Amino acid sequence: MKLRDLPFQDLGFAKADHHRALRTGFPEVVYGQGKTPEQVTKLTIALLAGSDRLLVTKATREMYTPVKEIFSDATYDEEAHTIVVDQREKSQHGPIVAVVSGGTSDLPVAREAAITASLMDCEVKEIVDVGVAGIHRLFDNLPSIQTAEVIVAVAGMEGALPSVISGLVRAPVIAVPTSVGYGTSYDGLAALLAMLNSCSPGIAVVNIDNGFGAGYMAALMVNKP
Amino acid sequence: MKLRDLPFQDLGFAKADHHRALRTGFPEVVYGQGKTPEQVTKLTIALLAGSDRLLVTKATREMYTPVKEIFSDATYDEEAHTIVVDQREKSQHGPIVAVVSGGTSDLPVAREAAITASLMDCEVKEIVDVGVAGIHRLFDNLPSIQTAEVIVAVAGMEGALPSVISGLVRAPVIAVPTSVGYGTSYDGLAALLAMLNSCSPGIAVVNIDNGFGAGYMAALMVNKP
Amino acid sequence: MKLRDLPFQDLGFAKADHHRALRTGFPEVVYGQGKTPEQVTKLTIALLAGSDRLLVTKATREMYTPVKEIFSDATYDEEAHTIVVDQREKSQHGPIVAVVSGGTSDLPVAREAAITASLMDCEVKEIVDVGVAGIHRLFDNLPSIQTAEVIVAVAGMEGALPSVISGLVRAPVIAVPTSVGYGTSYDGLAALLAMLNSCSPGIAVVNIDNGFGAGYMAALMVNKP
Amino acid sequence: MKLRDLPFQDLGFAKADHHRALRTGFPEVVYGQGKTPEQVTKLTIALLAGSDRLLVTKATREMYTPVKEIFSDATYDEEAHTIVVDQREKSQHGPIVAVVSGGTSDLPVAREAAITASLMDCEVKEIVDVGVAGIHRLFDNLPSIQTAEVIVAVAGMEGALPSVISGLVRAPVIAVPTSVGYGTSYDGLAALLAMLNSCSPGIAVVNIDNGFGAGYMAALMVNKP
Amino acid sequence: MKLRDLPFQDLGFAKADHHRALRTGFPEVVYGQGKTPEQVTKLTIALLAGSDRLLVTKATREMYTPVKEIFSDATYDEEAHTIVVDQREKSQHGPIVAVVSGGTSDLPVAREAAITASLMDCEVKEIVDVGVAGIHRLFDNLPSIQTAEVIVAVAGMEGALPSVISGLVRAPVIAVPTSVGYGTSYDGLAALLAMLNSCSPGIAVVNIDNGFGAGYMAALMVNKP
Amino acid sequence: MKLRDLPFQDLGFAKADHHRALRTGFPEVVYGQGKTPEQVTKLTIALLAGSDRLLVTKATREMYTPVKEIFSDATYDEEAHTIVVDQREKSQHGPIVAVVSGGTSDLPVAREAAITASLMDCEVKEIVDVGVAGIHRLFDNLPSIQTAEVIVAVAGMEGALPSVISGLVRAPVIAVPTSVGYGTSYDGLAALLAMLNSCSPGIAVVNIDNGFGAGYMAALMVNKP
Amino acid sequence: MKLRDLPFQDLGFAKADHHRALRTGFPEVVYGQGKTPEQVTKLTIALLAGSDRLLVTKATREMYTPVKEIFSDATYDEEAHTIVVDQREKSQHGPIVAVVSGGTSDLPVAREAAITASLMDCEVKEIVDVGVAGIHRLFDNLPSIQTAEVIVAVAGMEGALPSVISGLVRAPVIAVPTSVGYGTSYDGLAALLAMLNSCSPGIAVVNIDNGFGAGYMAALMVNKP
Amino acid sequence: MKLRDLPFQDLGFAKADHHRALRTGFPEVVYGQGKTPEQVTKLTIALLAGSDRLLVTKATREMYTPVKEIFSDATYDEEAHTIVVDQREKSQHGPIVAVVSGGTSDLPVAREAAITASLMDCEVKEIVDVGVAGIHRLFDNLPSIQTAEVIVAVAGMEGALPSVISGLVRAPVIAVPTSVGYGTSYDGLAALLAMLNSCSPGIAVVNIDNGFGAGYMAALMVNKP
Repeated sequence: MKLRDLPFQDLGFAKADHHRALRTGFPEVVYGQGKTPEQVTKLTIALLAGSDRLLVTKATREMYTPVKEIFSDATYDEEAHTIVVDQREKSQHGPIVAVVSGGTSDLPVAREAAITASLMDCEVKEIVDVGVAGIHRLFDNLPSIQTAEVIVAVAGMEGALPSVISGLVRAPVIAVPTSVGYGTSYDGLAALLAMLNSCSPGIAVVNIDNGFGAGYMAALMVNKP
Repeated sequence: MKLRDLPFQDLGFAKADHHRALRTGFPEVVYGQGKTPEQVTKLTIALLAGSDRLLVTKATREMYTPVKEIFSDATYDEEAHTIVVDQREKSQHGPIVAVVSGGTSDLPVAREAAITASLMDCEVKEIVDVGVAGIHRLFDNLPSIQTAEVIVAVAGMEGALPSVISGLVRAPVIAVPTSVGYGTSYDGLAALLAMLNSCSPGIAVVNIDNGFGAGYMAALMVNKP
Repeated sequence: MKLRDLPFQDLGFAKADHHRALRTGFPEVVYGQGKTPEQVTKLTIALLAGSDRLLVTKATREMYTPVKEIFSDATYDEEAHTIVVDQREKSQHGPIVAVVSGGTSDLPVAREAAITASLMDCEVKEIVDVGVAGIHRLFDNLPSIQTAEVIVAVAGMEGALPSVISGLVRAPVIAVPTSVGYGTSYDGLAALLAMLNSCSPGIAVVNIDNGFGAGYMAALMVNKP
Repeated sequence: MKLRDLPFQDLGFAKADHHRALRTGFPEVVYGQGKTPEQVTKLTIALLAGSDRLLVTKATREMYTPVKEIFSDATYDEEAHTIVVDQREKSQHGPIVAVVSGGTSDLPVAREAAITASLMDCEVKEIVDVGVAGIHRLFDNLPSIQTAEVIVAVAGMEGALPSVISGLVRAPVIAVPTSVGYGTSYDGLAALLAMLNSCSPGIAVVNIDNGFGAGYMAALMVNKP
Repeated sequence: MKLRDLPFQDLGFAKADHHRALRTGFPEVVYGQGKTPEQVTKLTIALLAGSDRLLVTKATREMYTPVKEIFSDATYDEEAHTIVVDQREKSQHGPIVAVVSGGTSDLPVAREAAITASLMDCEVKEIVDVGVAGIHRLFDNLPSIQTAEVIVAVAGMEGALPSVISGLVRAPVIAVPTSVGYGTSYDGLAALLAMLNSCSPGIAVVNIDNGFGAGYMAALMVNKP
Repeated sequence: MKLRDLPFQDLGFAKADHHRALRTGFPEVVYGQGKTPEQVTKLTIALLAGSDRLLVTKATREMYTPVKEIFSDATYDEEAHTIVVDQREKSQHGPIVAVVSGGTSDLPVAREAAITASLMDCEVKEIVDVGVAGIHRLFDNLPSIQTAEVIVAVAGMEGALPSVISGLVRAPVIAVPTSVGYGTSYDGLAALLAMLNSCSPGIAVVNIDNGFGAGYMAALMVNKP
Repeated sequence: MKLRDLPFQDLGFAKADHHRALRTGFPEVVYGQGKTPEQVTKLTIALLAGSDRLLVTKATREMYTPVKEIFSDATYDEEAHTIVVDQREKSQHGPIVAVVSGGTSDLPVAREAAITASLMDCEVKEIVDVGVAGIHRLFDNLPSIQTAEVIVAVAGMEGALPSVISGLVRAPVIAVPTSVGYGTSYDGLAALLAMLNSCSPGIAVVNIDNGFGAGYMAALMVNKP
Repeated sequence: MKLRDLPFQDLGFAKADHHRALRTGFPEVVYGQGKTPEQVTKLTIALLAGSDRLLVTKATREMYTPVKEIFSDATYDEEAHTIVVDQREKSQHGPIVAVVSGGTSDLPVAREAAITASLMDCEVKEIVDVGVAGIHRLFDNLPSIQTAEVIVAVAGMEGALPSVISGLVRAPVIAVPTSVGYGTSYDGLAALLAMLNSCSPGIAVVNIDNGFGAGYMAALMVNKP
């Protein structure tokens, strides 16, 4: 393999990587944070020239407007702050991914994970507000959770949800700490440490608030080539 | 109140505080760490002159031998590393304190809490190895735990046990993080942060590995004057 | 016990947990931070359908207005940022809880603790501005503090207040570090560490600025079922 | 599901969890650290009564000797410090897991991952000493790595290996930071942070030096029920 | 050498150090952050009285306007936030410095490094968006990078770029961590630690976001007196 | 001494401590941060009833206006953000305190120290912009610095100034780290650690940005009763 | 002043600084940690050639033996681990320094401070075991403490002692955190932060366990030239 | 360039990288820590087959003995813990590198830097014990330091040495923090932060105690191809 022959397109401020879709089965995702609407639009056009799907994370309404004008099938999620363009036929069924979250404030991160996995051909079940302080709410949803091939568990504060779920299911768990909390939550550090130190095996962790990364990882796990 | 008139006895290397028993209902506890057997023995003699009960924490067998020679009713706990002298009639029943711990390695800290609360007239129920990774073991012990007026929950690693228990009972929970774990457990910091950030109210936390402090606090809570 | 049969009500963005009052003697508290006034109102209505008391913490005036329109006995505390609805007869006397705070800036946290404990049937004594830098002010209030069954001690900066109080009274102390300070106070970390490392036993600690948790814990301790 | 009816066996110092194999497809793993050879032997006997496979991690030769006397097919790995008992017929082929490590000092952690995944029916390819400082060594092994369904990437120091691999393959990567390094490696913290912040998606992370957890996660991912 | 005789000029709020150019071959650089446009202008006038080149870092457009009125050859860079005054003849060729950066968000820091080295008589090659997640983009630029006498490598997030480059070239690498990232990137700490712990020698590190310092160091290295 | 008889005046939101002046030779200082202009004014009136000097730190112009209306001799320092009321005859000469600072941005902290020491009857010499990067500027001021009985050394960034000064003089040095810097200065932590670890004895340190505390300490040291 | 002409003597592994005594009124102190007995002896001989007093800190008995053979008036303190040689006439009275310590384990650090200040011509009062948990013991010693010109307050754990003392006396306080404690004491960090954040002014802090530095600073403060 | 064709030799536990010398002008260095004498010997033989120079860092006498038997020109440095084999003619003169260190305890790290740079054809000047507490010792050595093309500055504790040197010379400075110190030096963190935050440009930093890396970097800088 001669790596340097791989195709990409130089936009000046960024290099659009058309080879990525070939390599990883998924187009370059645009990380919206800090980009101008104009930059997002340019990247969107360049990337959709070589792909039929695109995801912009940390997107604002201001970024969405010009993208929507060009790609009428673009959608914006107010909670997850994502722009999605999916020009394919809707698939009926995919492998099941459960996205389970602890509290109301964890929803934006959980939605980002769910949208990412959906766009990567998974059937996503979203289960919200089942934190460990009222564990019977979690048990009520166990039958549904147990149908999933992989579980994304999203929690802030003490971050105990992935441990408790992992002890109750057979599927692997992707744990996502969120920055929800105050004082010694240290913007998600408490949850992150709890998840890394789970006494239940079968858990792996992504960065704080990285819903996209968790959804992406979950989809990679269940979509074998 | 003229505080400076309170009695204490100067041993040169320490001041034995006879007033403490009057003030707090419990004699000065000897913190054994770093003291010589001779120092422990001297403090034991001085303190038992004004009290009928004494606790030495972080005690070694070497400290126990000379104390045992003088106070034949002294006992040593191999797991908790405590010396106890209790010269009173054994009480039959006291308020119930449950000491619940997550893993085998948490036992020394849990035992220290149990011995402390017992010496302060509580009836202690010890429930071990009920970590959240196998949560059905915890549920099996719930009826017993729910009889307690206060619960001491001891856990290392991700420290989720107090949160889960607190969501299932009415009683207040004293949470004790332990230094059990490796890597990012950071000698108990992960567990401490999880406990401080519990999404379930009704939890307060003591220092890492501070079984004595938790047992003491629990006994203060149930032994109203 | 079949946990999953416990009742709760799904509001879409949250699950109102009616069982909680049965389990813990207190309704689900609404954590206002980050919620819209509309969400707070909906939760308030749902929760008061199954309870006669409700507490919203970290509440704003904007949240209070619509709640007040529906529940005319709702009150708002400017300092503690709490909404309280209490539809019961006022009790005359309850167990005494002292809420002691170090400096003027610690007042919001202290008030939150006091309001919470009051709503849970305690008689609360609030003692303010008795930091250790002028320790005679603390001594002046000792007779009052010593009548309490449990003490909530609130302090920022060096966080020495709980240690000093605990050495002077028999009652257990719930210590609340606050984020008051600058530089190496690290938003309450200095106070938290001081409280966890107190050389006086009989202290347990809650999260930084967690006045609600401290008041709740104090009330649980003195309100035995 | 009535959780409290699940079977387990109380050994006094621990509760052997026979249900775990049913729930998760794998028996309770014995964490050897801090246990006596006698305790390890007892747990081994109890657990193998209900399973045909067992893994002891952080095991010493002293633990191995009594276990070997009872279970003659037990094996000990000097590098990974594991005891394995596998009483099944050897399977010929399983899903492929690549375990890639950066430096010689990372080998014990990598071996622990490989042994765990092997015991869980994976075909493991071990690729060593391919750190990013000499990246051509990694490229030389790419064809082999690209056959794997999941990759475990083990690295200390700057922890860049998972990022680089993830950019070159389609498979998901389980990243394991190791405590290899000195100074500001902070016993694996530098590597952990690098892995959590990878600019390449498709990576999830386990605790520092947690080779077992990575191998277990990898096997869960490829062994769908 | 009698140090105290060295010349400087007291402006009241600062001392302009004319000797610095003699000592270090470069005039005092004005750190714009927190200074008023008036202060920047005064310093500019004072310093250019003894030098033919000046650099203001962290400069705003508001600072630029009055400086431009006095020094018509002053230029402002929108991305790097620098004001440059260079009253010399443009040199044709200098030693080659490559400034390589990982992502679009790292550009301001990379530009600051490039402008600084240019002003110190280096010929700068800027190579952008070659992060390790798409390593073939880096390889495509290797021939260009390998012509440089020294390389400035700028990266946020996991900070792996300097390690990978250093393994591929002979030249020394100045690594600049940036605060680009979120969650556990901790504003550049993750990248900084990765760079300090590189398994490839030939790397030295400057402060987070210190593009100026890296460009200055690079120029010192190649401009031997 | 019966401490509880000491006089203080309860203002509701604070207790004005008239005894403090008797105990420490200086009135309670008002920490302005977070107080309303009305609260500052009330405290000012209450405290000046028992003292002839008052200092408000972290004061705003909004606090100054009502105070000035009542106390016409009040002065406000724009840089130090202090209000001073001094109703005594101006003293001619006091013990000499040198306040030495490293950079322009350190001036507000240095001024706060200087104003505090002046109000406590010291003759203050302010020496600015003598950071270690241009050490000849420091040497130029050495004769002046060496006349002081105590030196306050104020520095951010690497915080080396107190070490260097302390190696050159006989007088004790009070070191004040400031939050000036960026990246790994961590808001003054780098400077604080440098000052605590000075290889030169004769240095003691106050909190980050605590100019008041340094000036107060310096004045206490030279104003023996 | 031409600094480079100052005298020193090159021993190969160190440069003995005879000028230091002239500059600071005290000879170079030998930091024993990590030095061989032979190195300590050589330094002792070199330094006592130009001075009549010498202090070796962190000294072992092995270092003391050869020094004692040459300097028969050398003394060794078992608790402080110091070697002292003082060849002067004993002074009768000096300025009073109080060294106050919290617990038995803080004694080595307190002794080091006391020995240092004594050698620098102070009259030292040592007051031990007066921690804030039994504050009446501190009050009992207040009359003695209040005679001191400067107070060294030594404490581990929560480090509250300097704050409490400073609120009760007029003299400045040098605070010394010690590494006494466990868990979240973090080897003295908790005490250090408490001391830096004291709400009582008139405190400055030295490094953890730096008894020498505190004693030295105290002596500098009271021994004006 | 087809990277995967580059030559290396697989030793089983490591891959000897013969291409490295071609790429970087220096053979793979053996990091001795944690390797057996047998492994070090094998690597030595393999690497010297393709090179005429070799460096083993963190080497013990036990590693040296078997290497010396095979390579009679191998030398061992007791202070730096290095094995050097250099089979070339001794060069007379190379570019000058100054290695300056602060205290006696910094010598091992300084020696490691000096040996590394010497082996890479530099003429090294070692200047020891010139810490900033006695700055005249540094000035005495300035003329010698100023002849160097690059300076390696090694310091623990407050780490101020590189800042002070950099302000006095024109050459670039490689700063090496060492783990020398106690308490809040945090094993070199204080020195590292000081060096990263130097107010003097022209400094870049390597990992704590990384003498090898500093010497290597220095040699790369002055040995242009």
